[in-house]
Amino acid sequence: MEECGMEEVLLEDERLDFLLAEDLRIIQSPSVFSFSLDAVLLANFSRIPKKKGKIIDLCSGNGIIPLLLSTRTNASIIGVELQQRLADMAKRSIRYNKLTEQIEIYEHDLRTITSVLPKERADVVTCNPPYFATPPTSLKNGNPHLAIARHEIMCTLDDVIKTSSELVKQGGKVFLVHRPERLIDMIDIMRKYRLEPKRVQMVHPQIHKDANTVLIEGIKDGKPGVKYLPPIIVHDAEHAYTDEVREMLYGSRS
Amino acid sequence: MEECGMEEVLLEDERLDFLLAEDLRIIQSPSVFSFSLDAVLLANFSRIPKKKGKIIDLCSGNGIIPLLLSTRTNASIIGVELQQRLADMAKRSIRYNKLTEQIEIYEHDLRTITSVLPKERADVVTCNPPYFATPPTSLKNGNPHLAIARHEIMCTLDDVIKTSSELVKQGGKVFLVHRPERLIDMIDIMRKYRLEPKRVQMVHPQIHKDANTVLIEGIKDGKPGVKYLPPIIVHDAEHAYTDEVREMLYGSRS
Repeated sequence: MEECGMEEVLLEDERLDFLLAEDLRIIQSPSVFSFSLDAVLLANFSRIPKKKGKIIDLCSGNGIIPLLLSTRTNASIIGVELQQRLADMAKRSIRYNKLTEQIEIYEHDLRTITSVLPKERADVVTCNPPYFATPPTSLKNGNPHLAIARHEIMCTLDDVIKTSSELVKQGGKVFLVHRPERLIDMIDIMRKYRLEPKRVQMVHPQIHKDANTVLIEGIKDGKPGVKYLPPIIVHDAEHAYTDEVREMLYGSRS
Repeated sequence: MEECGMEEVLLEDERLDFLLAEDLRIIQSPSVFSFSLDAVLLANFSRIPKKKGKIIDLCSGNGIIPLLLSTRTNASIIGVELQQRLADMAKRSIRYNKLTEQIEIYEHDLRTITSVLPKERADVVTCNPPYFATPPTSLKNGNPHLAIARHEIMCTLDDVIKTSSELVKQGGKVFLVHRPERLIDMIDIMRKYRLEPKRVQMVHPQIHKDANTVLIEGIKDGKPGVKYLPPIIVHDAEHAYTDEVREMLYGSRS
């Protein structure tokens, strides 16, 4: 808490981390949720309108994706997060960064969000959903915040994609990040809900390792035809971030 | 025709090209068919039994894949090729390389090949099929050899995958190469014929370019779960082959 004014922003074991060098700050807590590289990759992968429009981020967590996208657009951004504690962290980060005019957080279950947000109005929907299909056996004694963020307890991949498709307008774009082993399922479900896959990008931890993350863009009622973008390689041979990823994380290659 | 004995092997505008440095030779003709890098990538991607077993290569062309695989296995290899001229080139290359004990070429339509070859006996099926779905409008006046090799005139992707699945035994492997824009179709068709996708590898012409080729492995009645292998990058920044590809093409990195 080396800077003044932090006390009223932070709770318990929270810390205020830098985002994109020193332009932006985000409240994090290791015991509740910290954003992962995947969120940064997804924000970077997402093609968004620059000047105006409407962007919705589902499973928004501590608001990492709305915060990152806000540096690239004047569009309004809505984050939807089910967990009260995370939604509250996101709201405080938004206030701290003076972004309350642009970003709004809905503490809401995405499965019923279309009762609150209008259908087919968003230009872009992003989502970094829970990855694990099976609830952990250790759930009862585990950390419920982390379990809900990581496992398909409160929403399945079908829920996420169905809701994304309902919210996005015709010709609008949906951007998702997931594990590569779910790519085929994702494509099947996207097509079921009229989202045509258009761009796929594989993320490899190192150049000679299997992909461990995949980014995908779908366009509502888009024409078939997928491009497979150049791979993203996260670490070089010395396990340091590659220039490409360093630029995403810190806003510069140095 | 600088070496003796070539005259009886070569016809018309054919030439005898090296494969894998000087270990192997293959008869090619630019007016009929020359093998592409994709065939070399597919042979390299294919996991085959080393000592014994049965391998079938569909759409075998001038026999490039059986010839390449023969350097890595003692299994028997059958190539199936519809076009008389190409099947004949393949047979002469096999004779020239003294591989008639191991490789046999069937001049046959793959759509009816199971009337000649037994079902569910092969350990491995490979295929580098025609890529283009629409017959070229220039077909009537064009080169029919090239048209048939490149376009889905005599067999569709569905024919190829259906036949592959019929020929391969339970737990056996099918290896295909195609354009990335057909990957989703391929996966759908593979699953329709009980081939579960297990390994996918994207091939990029350069590290910062979109993939232009994809390799895929399916296992008959395999468990779901796909790995996305490290990308293959064909050319470096100076447009020279990368070490990895040079080794596939010439058998050495030097």
